Amino acid sequence: MESTFTEMDSIFNRTKSALVEFMAILTPIIENAKDDHERLFWHHIYEEEEHRSDRLSILMPKIQAMLKNGLNLSGNQPELVHLLQDISLEKFGLHNFLEHLDLFLFQFKETELEGKIHPLRQFTYNDYQQMKVILEKLNLEFQGGSQFNTSIPTDEKEGNDSDVKIEAYANGNISGTPQAIPSKKKTLTVGSLKQS
Amino acid sequence: MESTFTEMDSIFNRTKSALVEFMAILTPIIENAKDDHERLFWHHIYEEEEHRSDRLSILMPKIQAMLKNGLNLSGNQPELVHLLQDISLEKFGLHNFLEHLDLFLFQFKETELEGKIHPLRQFTYNDYQQMKVILEKLNLEFQGGSQFNTSIPTDEKEGNDSDVKIEAYANGNISGTPQAIPSKKKTLTVGSLKQS
Repeated sequence: MESTFTEMDSIFNRTKSALVEFMAILTPIIENAKDDHERLFWHHIYEEEEHRSDRLSILMPKIQAMLKNGLNLSGNQPELVHLLQDISLEKFGLHNFLEHLDLFLFQFKETELEGKIHPLRQFTYNDYQQMKVILEKLNLEFQGGSQFNTSIPTDEKEGNDSDVKIEAYANGNISGTPQAIPSKKKTLTVGSLKQS
Repeated sequence: MESTFTEMDSIFNRTKSALVEFMAILTPIIENAKDDHERLFWHHIYEEEEHRSDRLSILMPKIQAMLKNGLNLSGNQPELVHLLQDISLEKFGLHNFLEHLDLFLFQFKETELEGKIHPLRQFTYNDYQQMKVILEKLNLEFQGGSQFNTSIPTDEKEGNDSDVKIEAYANGNISGTPQAIPSKKKTLTVGSLKQS
């Protein structure tokens, strides 16, 4: 389990640097937005990332302290449950970051900014996949599923709401760039996406 | 302090109904989006609101249980600190909802949907102002500020990042519709906004 927490620590460190880089790229875009609508849009995303940064600044030292002092994961102490809830929230934060980057790539496709965002997008995608595996492990280990596993994006939820899903974001279904997102999910199956 | 929790309970109930209504309005917009970019954009907002809904479903019974069983707010129990952190997160969630509604109003200005969203936007704005007052009260009461008061939007932060702020969203500065948001914050003062 220690390696799981070490891995999580690396993911949070990487995404913290990436969000700082993203916010720096957004700053002049917000300042020079062509109208109030565009300004509010990027401002809103900037603000969400800033909030994520603040949350990570509180969470990361807790994980690092656990790693330093040895993991004490026995029992079902409230502190541990809350730590796991916070981790679950940051899994969702990573998912949101991925979509923020994809929204950016849609608007700034074929500009010089595309080249700066693509690498962030690529490792964020990989890190998010890894975070899903980590959360599954933690769920199995602590059996506290319903208490902290609330951070399931729409695309990964089973059952309802299928009409608003983007299948390219569903489990095991996404490949590379946001340009690969199909607009009509019902015309594509898991198989057809895997082959594409 | 009991009246503060009763008021918070009302706010969360109102916003829970409002987000369900908003998600229902978003569903056909996502389904019929004109391209992948627009589809991802509304899908992303839908997903954030769905996540907020899931979090509120866990938080609201806790607040209701506290109200039913009598508030036990003495000391600095971990459970209480975490409850306050969760409340702080939902203050930020309410702020995000307000911006989601404003983004909607930008795109669907002068359509029949505008009339459906405006009332939600108006009471969400009022509820958010009220949540700020509630959080201030809780901060004073529990002196645990740094532990749970991390949910301060960019516009309300003091000091840095002023270039990306939208002054219309700053404390005590916003009036009505998003159309009132100035594009160049530096040309407007608190006074000029209050008079507008």
